[in-house]
Amino acid sequence: MSGHTRLDRQIAFLNEADKLKNTVRATEICDGSRFENSAEHSWHLTLYALVLADQAGPGVDINRVIKMLILHDLVEIDAGDNPIFGDFDADVVALQEQAAADRIFGLLPDDLRQDLRTIWEEFEAAASPSAKFAKSLDRFQPPMQNLQSGGGSWTEFNVSEAQIHTRVGTKIAIGAPGLWAYARTRIAAFFAALPEK
Amino acid sequence: MSGHTRLDRQIAFLNEADKLKNTVRATEICDGSRFENSAEHSWHLTLYALVLADQAGPGVDINRVIKMLILHDLVEIDAGDNPIFGDFDADVVALQEQAAADRIFGLLPDDLRQDLRTIWEEFEAAASPSAKFAKSLDRFQPPMQNLQSGGGSWTEFNVSEAQIHTRVGTKIAIGAPGLWAYARTRIAAFFAALPEK
Repeated sequence: MSGHTRLDRQIAFLNEADKLKNTVRATEICDGSRFENSAEHSWHLTLYALVLADQAGPGVDINRVIKMLILHDLVEIDAGDNPIFGDFDADVVALQEQAAADRIFGLLPDDLRQDLRTIWEEFEAAASPSAKFAKSLDRFQPPMQNLQSGGGSWTEFNVSEAQIHTRVGTKIAIGAPGLWAYARTRIAAFFAALPEK
Repeated sequence: MSGHTRLDRQIAFLNEADKLKNTVRATEICDGSRFENSAEHSWHLTLYALVLADQAGPGVDINRVIKMLILHDLVEIDAGDNPIFGDFDADVVALQEQAAADRIFGLLPDDLRQDLRTIWEEFEAAASPSAKFAKSLDRFQPPMQNLQSGGGSWTEFNVSEAQIHTRVGTKIAIGAPGLWAYARTRIAAFFAALPEK
């Protein structure tokens, strides 16, 4: 393997990243047959970015958005996925995710480690137009899947329409107000059609 | 849903794309615990592109490569995955994939259908520098996974080192000769370490 030390590090990182295929999320895939993993979720979000680029506001670089979405969940290899309607301490999770980023991006050669970490930190900070749009897509996809699977994580966590507005809708609206307007209408129709409890 | 007809079509496409999470490939994930699906494979390849961009030759647009890799396997929703060492008629598969592309990209609004189909056709044609690099990454990832999982699809299909050179190596070398040089060395070491049959 001598002479290939840079490639060895790149491949070690890519092999480690493979573990994201085993990180299970609270959202079901659209047919409701099983829970989604964070690797396929990340792929789906990059497709959301390609297809919904016309919903992005001024200053959004869609190529940058896609890179953020490729990388955004890698820290879950160590820190796990925290469902939006679950019970967790955001400060604790943030510390776990920083430690995970140190370890996982640290597998890379220094230049790549810096480049990719910078993209991930931009996503986490949710301050740039591109990061805001990427974050909004990350919040918008689970409701679209729940509508398809007949409730999904809403049913599992016994979530009300009002809670979706507060915990998800306000965040989608930051970077993609048009998507929240669309989701809000469809979510209202879904809850209106539920049988009375 | 009136007033949202464009978004309805975009979301219908994204919901249909979700089915790629159920398309099973012949390659195992790195821990050997199960077969990989084409959605998580597509995500992994976009990460390969980000991390291995320094292996791309002149004229490669890495953002374009990433878009190709996001889209490249969508036709498998209808046409299924054809393992490289399996037995299939490439002409028949090509026809099935064109029909699948008509149906799946046809779910989109016209402008998006054209844009995304063009990217997919560029990948399929394997003529541009970006498409050649994308194709090489698509061939390079399975050997990397097989090395991790202890043989994977090589064992399943009883593949020899010479067959890997012919059916995979020559294709990796077209768009990423440095990656084939690396893979070749590691594959040789893997086969050298196998017990005699």
